[in-house]
Amino acid sequence: MPLTMNREVFITCAVTGGGGTQDRSPHVPRSPEQIADSAIAAAKAGAAVVHCHVRDPETGAPSRDVKLYREVTDRIRASDTDVVLNLTAGMGGDMVFGDAESPLPINESASDMVGATERVAHVAECLPEICTLDCGTMNFAEADYVMTNTPGMLTAMGRMMTELGVKPEIEAFDTGHLWYAKQLVKDGVLEADALVQLCMGVPWGAPNDLNTFMAMVNNVPADWNWSAFSLGRDQMPYVAAAVLAGGNVRVGLEDNLMLDKGVLAENHQLVTRAVEIIERLGARVIGPEDVRKKLNLTKRAPKG
Amino acid sequence: MPLTMNREVFITCAVTGGGGTQDRSPHVPRSPEQIADSAIAAAKAGAAVVHCHVRDPETGAPSRDVKLYREVTDRIRASDTDVVLNLTAGMGGDMVFGDAESPLPINESASDMVGATERVAHVAECLPEICTLDCGTMNFAEADYVMTNTPGMLTAMGRMMTELGVKPEIEAFDTGHLWYAKQLVKDGVLEADALVQLCMGVPWGAPNDLNTFMAMVNNVPADWNWSAFSLGRDQMPYVAAAVLAGGNVRVGLEDNLMLDKGVLAENHQLVTRAVEIIERLGARVIGPEDVRKKLNLTKRAPKG
Amino acid sequence: MPLTMNREVFITCAVTGGGGTQDRSPHVPRSPEQIADSAIAAAKAGAAVVHCHVRDPETGAPSRDVKLYREVTDRIRASDTDVVLNLTAGMGGDMVFGDAESPLPINESASDMVGATERVAHVAECLPEICTLDCGTMNFAEADYVMTNTPGMLTAMGRMMTELGVKPEIEAFDTGHLWYAKQLVKDGVLEADALVQLCMGVPWGAPNDLNTFMAMVNNVPADWNWSAFSLGRDQMPYVAAAVLAGGNVRVGLEDNLMLDKGVLAENHQLVTRAVEIIERLGARVIGPEDVRKKLNLTKRAPKG
Amino acid sequence: MPLTMNREVFITCAVTGGGGTQDRSPHVPRSPEQIADSAIAAAKAGAAVVHCHVRDPETGAPSRDVKLYREVTDRIRASDTDVVLNLTAGMGGDMVFGDAESPLPINESASDMVGATERVAHVAECLPEICTLDCGTMNFAEADYVMTNTPGMLTAMGRMMTELGVKPEIEAFDTGHLWYAKQLVKDGVLEADALVQLCMGVPWGAPNDLNTFMAMVNNVPADWNWSAFSLGRDQMPYVAAAVLAGGNVRVGLEDNLMLDKGVLAENHQLVTRAVEIIERLGARVIGPEDVRKKLNLTKRAPKG
Repeated sequence: MPLTMNREVFITCAVTGGGGTQDRSPHVPRSPEQIADSAIAAAKAGAAVVHCHVRDPETGAPSRDVKLYREVTDRIRASDTDVVLNLTAGMGGDMVFGDAESPLPINESASDMVGATERVAHVAECLPEICTLDCGTMNFAEADYVMTNTPGMLTAMGRMMTELGVKPEIEAFDTGHLWYAKQLVKDGVLEADALVQLCMGVPWGAPNDLNTFMAMVNNVPADWNWSAFSLGRDQMPYVAAAVLAGGNVRVGLEDNLMLDKGVLAENHQLVTRAVEIIERLGARVIGPEDVRKKLNLTKRAPKG
Repeated sequence: MPLTMNREVFITCAVTGGGGTQDRSPHVPRSPEQIADSAIAAAKAGAAVVHCHVRDPETGAPSRDVKLYREVTDRIRASDTDVVLNLTAGMGGDMVFGDAESPLPINESASDMVGATERVAHVAECLPEICTLDCGTMNFAEADYVMTNTPGMLTAMGRMMTELGVKPEIEAFDTGHLWYAKQLVKDGVLEADALVQLCMGVPWGAPNDLNTFMAMVNNVPADWNWSAFSLGRDQMPYVAAAVLAGGNVRVGLEDNLMLDKGVLAENHQLVTRAVEIIERLGARVIGPEDVRKKLNLTKRAPKG
Repeated sequence: MPLTMNREVFITCAVTGGGGTQDRSPHVPRSPEQIADSAIAAAKAGAAVVHCHVRDPETGAPSRDVKLYREVTDRIRASDTDVVLNLTAGMGGDMVFGDAESPLPINESASDMVGATERVAHVAECLPEICTLDCGTMNFAEADYVMTNTPGMLTAMGRMMTELGVKPEIEAFDTGHLWYAKQLVKDGVLEADALVQLCMGVPWGAPNDLNTFMAMVNNVPADWNWSAFSLGRDQMPYVAAAVLAGGNVRVGLEDNLMLDKGVLAENHQLVTRAVEIIERLGARVIGPEDVRKKLNLTKRAPKG
Repeated sequence: MPLTMNREVFITCAVTGGGGTQDRSPHVPRSPEQIADSAIAAAKAGAAVVHCHVRDPETGAPSRDVKLYREVTDRIRASDTDVVLNLTAGMGGDMVFGDAESPLPINESASDMVGATERVAHVAECLPEICTLDCGTMNFAEADYVMTNTPGMLTAMGRMMTELGVKPEIEAFDTGHLWYAKQLVKDGVLEADALVQLCMGVPWGAPNDLNTFMAMVNNVPADWNWSAFSLGRDQMPYVAAAVLAGGNVRVGLEDNLMLDKGVLAENHQLVTRAVEIIERLGARVIGPEDVRKKLNLTKRAPKG
């Protein structure tokens, strides 16, 4: 079937991420307050969805502390600005081996491998509308590191998310991850109207060339919703690519620190840039209420 | 650039593999003698290259025993039938985690994770013309298993192969593996005229749909040689797909046990079937000497 | 959506064509008797559908003579061998201009441009189960010739075919022809479950490279049936390509005169070759009754 | 090979076109003065190339009058604003048939079919740096019309352009047109470093879906330069698509009359919109001198 440009686009802002970027830009938010504020500013600029990790407020190091997620969630929900909350569930699958001559024993201090229940504990606690599910295992641009999400782990986590009524956003970093996501739907672990994020150009997953991107887009089932992003200076090109191919977009400091060459970005500036591109392509940027309808999400009330 | 059918095709026969298939067909060769005999029969049927694993002669269980590789190599080289020898270097990267609630500690008895030197010890000993390099880390169709080849491990193993003068056959199970292989060439780890095997339809790598396959083919550099295969009943369709898209083919019991529905295959029968397809498409099956010229391989003399 | 190999394939044999091939092979059938006999032999070899043109029995020159079509039809229907009859409606749109300095006046003696009613007169007379509809205007490999089928002509002819209850087989020689065919369905000229032949590698339509082919396949609506072919030595490769991409196949002397290098073919030999390829890919060749069910065709009784 | 975004993009503004749009917007320039002024304003806004047709100054009807081309050329060259001049050579191949029952005689008053020398007379007179060559014959969205450019005509016109030292911009409206353009290079009619415009979404040529577009991009030879455009509200999306896929862009009133829904555009506004998109994607808009280097063009002095 022919592909049709998406004329009703939602923007996700990935506000801080789980990478070691906190020392490369002063704008990477660290504390729950900074993260919530940056998320709210992004929402004001046009992001319908905010995708949040948490960090140690002091060091900026990535964290899985449920209390930090709770605070981010409460602050965003307490705001006057409506936005769909999307929390990562990507952490807890970080495996670091010994060097090439001695892969075992693993590097325990650098690894963070925990069970499914612990990996979704903050999701159970905060009940965001969406949480992510990194749908495979792969190398990254580090010598001894593996992002580890086995089929068994994904089945367990996916089932928990479905039971919690939190929509999983499948992260597909390569074509095999998308294939397995479809298997999770077939297995009844995920619901039929799945949501997928095509993560392009993350070494060493799918490269960001358009032939590969189109192969992935052609493989997204017709009744799913999808979004796509790429990294660094390819972030804005992929805003356009995703819209043209019929999808939604993601920008934010998790994926790219720069607004222009030599100019560090803030999240809301990246969202504004995306809005400018989308509108010049002739599409409309939709807000959180439209996204909830599109994705069948239920808004949770602020804790009170 | 337009893609052009390959009219001079070489066939690789993957004679036994490293999977637990030995009890599913009596034709899966186990002992070095059986493996060598099956390889030679495949060569006589038209395979220019034989890709060999070794197995415990008694149990049929996959093995990394250098002595077994030595025997397979000697038997094949001593034969009157010329064939290019390709040994796997895929073993020694098998990681099995605990279950989804307790991924650590790893399941030591089920895992087989060794250093780079040990992973290529049989390659150094036997000096085959080609050995494989599984170019990434990914899930397979098992709940807790990960095929583990980190960037650090691949760099170390690739460098050893290049120094040994053994041509690595990059195994790309997904688009990111191909991307990283190109990085290994850029890094000077692999030589510029690389050889890649596109492994389609191996869960959970690249699915065997043609859009994905074409995206991968479009991403193979013009000065590389390539081959492709898929599994089970998709083995023969991918013989045709690879030839049509300009590549070479692989068949054999490693990837498929059946000749026809309900009929267990022998290796030489699968090669014969591939020859029949290739010739009916109007292409010619080339032999080991032509392959050595095409891939710049040097034939090693039998141990004497 | 992923593309899936077709495991229940029908073969169309295009037995004689409308090109000037009659003097290049003694096997190109000329008289109605020869054409019917060749069609029946093709059916016996495995063709479920025979696509027929007619020729002057003496000179072999392409013809639109209704009586010749009548005789071919009657002979095929009177045969013991069941086969779906597909008559061309491609003739009568041949335009030959003057040379590049004087395109007008047109070369009247070389042109054959007639009205819609006349172009489908033999279809109305013979009521084959299928007739072709060349869905556009394009250059061929001749300096001053244009195959001419304007939107107005296609609308008129398509409507007549639909009213006659004869299934049009849309011939799409390039991506724009397929686009217009979809417009004809939208306009209600053709029924929703259309049938399309992707004609690859006909100069100067779509080249026979796989990227272009896949783009066309991806654009065939899910509820259509389709087939594909290419010319000359690309005929057999496209048998495989069509099956792999989910379609049906066409072979025959209209598109290719050679069985092997230096060996002139007969129609039934080309069909046999196609059967051999299809079966080795693991698919089944289906017969005329299965095709009628698949395409919703009604078999017409022999004139009696 | 992977496709890479173009980070040094040139914009062509197609200022008035040859279609019957003059009564649908007051901004469609008609007189040579209006056309030149609009072209110059487009150049000031960032167009490195202006693609011009001429029109009857009174009625606005499309014209092939050499004097009008001469005046447009002189006015543009006399301007202080530098820009690469690209004149159409598309006119003179307009064939209109009688209706579907009587295609012949042709509708002489509606047709405009002239010889090659006459079709390039204004090119010989004005010696623009670029002129277009519509590389095939096809239907448009009119019942009885055919855009007619036979192989013989294209060979004759292409040879004249090459001899004049005017760079042909091949217009490929479908995949077969691109194929024939490559044949013209092989035949020595066009030079090896050809320039091609991929014309997407013009009924009934290539549809503007991305799979088809990528198939065409994948078929552009590596040593060619290329640009792409689509029509109406798809004009701006194709600015992004072309840049992402590695090409250059075309906008202007020839292809699209609207700036936004309900807002008629001027040429310079469409150029400004394209610049805004290109820059937000992280690419740079290059000027006429850079284009001349890239395309090996020689600037002609104003008539003096």
